[in-house]
Amino acid sequence: MVEGMVEVHSVFKTQERNAVYRAIATRRDVRRGFVDKPMPDELLRRLLSAAHCAPSVGLMQPSRFIVIRDLSVRGAIHEAFLEANERATATYSRGRREQYANLKLEGILEAPQNLCILSNPHSERGHQLGRHTMPETAIYSTVCAVQNLWLAARAEGVGVGWVSILDPDRLREILHVPERIVPVAYLCLGYVDSFAAEPELERSGWETRIPLEEVISYDQYTTTEEEGAH
Amino acid sequence: MVEGMVEVHSVFKTQERNAVYRAIATRRDVRRGFVDKPMPDELLRRLLSAAHCAPSVGLMQPSRFIVIRDLSVRGAIHEAFLEANERATATYSRGRREQYANLKLEGILEAPQNLCILSNPHSERGHQLGRHTMPETAIYSTVCAVQNLWLAARAEGVGVGWVSILDPDRLREILHVPERIVPVAYLCLGYVDSFAAEPELERSGWETRIPLEEVISYDQYTTTEEEGAH
Repeated sequence: MVEGMVEVHSVFKTQERNAVYRAIATRRDVRRGFVDKPMPDELLRRLLSAAHCAPSVGLMQPSRFIVIRDLSVRGAIHEAFLEANERATATYSRGRREQYANLKLEGILEAPQNLCILSNPHSERGHQLGRHTMPETAIYSTVCAVQNLWLAARAEGVGVGWVSILDPDRLREILHVPERIVPVAYLCLGYVDSFAAEPELERSGWETRIPLEEVISYDQYTTTEEEGAH
Repeated sequence: MVEGMVEVHSVFKTQERNAVYRAIATRRDVRRGFVDKPMPDELLRRLLSAAHCAPSVGLMQPSRFIVIRDLSVRGAIHEAFLEANERATATYSRGRREQYANLKLEGILEAPQNLCILSNPHSERGHQLGRHTMPETAIYSTVCAVQNLWLAARAEGVGVGWVSILDPDRLREILHVPERIVPVAYLCLGYVDSFAAEPELERSGWETRIPLEEVISYDQYTTTEEEGAH
């Protein structure tokens, strides 16, 4: 205990600890199944507060949030997705291309709202603390905010899907984002009735999960099997 | 409900939901106060599993973990911190330099263990899904893993401190990290008796927290007060 430091009740009860692990384990990337139930403003506020609580280098708090409900804006984003996705589809060879085309990769129009989370990595807030050697931690701080929001949403029964098949310049143009601000995550949010037990990309056979053992090493880096093979 | 999809019990009880918000709100960047109580292997395993559950673009799971207990390795990292911190200190002008010098910015040797979380952004896993337009999402996936671990640690009574005042090339050299692998976060982990009610950088007067209202906009980007001023 540091002198002068106000402490908070530190210990989590077993059920509380389990709830945190449950949110982590059952969080999914949700692109379908949004139900027709509006998200109250207080709920959105709780989710954004959770994001805003994220750690940030030097306490710079670089994260910015654009709540997107306007259907014409979402329509333009959806167009941008279709363009980017067409280009992505063309990169796959025959069998995989069919599999790719069958995946549901966004819920821009089906979800009742979208949220773009951005970062201002050049903010003077935080006075550069921690950013001399690793300036990328400014944007990493915003990614931590995304994950906070995602877990809070899981606990609220709200599905979140991250759409990265978007050209960042098109996104900037549609949302009037200045040059120095970086769009980090484009999310679709809405209530769902249920969450899948496994990731959609695993269920559909796109990719399998890698065992935890393969990615842990001790005191120095150990190349994984896959890395060694390439 | 999608056909063929196994669903999990979706709804969180109020206490469970509150526990998730509690972990998010009371998580702190911890650099002191580590107690002399070893972290059991099963605990570390739970934390790494939580990290490994993080969302990843295309289910590529690019995150890699190096658990660092060896004191000679930690000594070398600590040296690297001192060098980087000396250079950082020199960038501040008089008053702020003193304030900076008084901050506790790492717990490399005091914490019972360190953890380096890295990313393999070039992995072929995930078959490039979601990475054509935003390849940076590979590394973002690893940052999500960091935040998962941080929240799980809070629920376990384990303090986590992120040290970004390290030259990434030195870190690579000390931990034998290959060129293509990116060190994302260097963390100090250990049990603590309590967590501060507010961020250390706020308590010490280094920076204040920005109100949530200032960073939210609707349907298009709105420049914050600070951004407008610069």
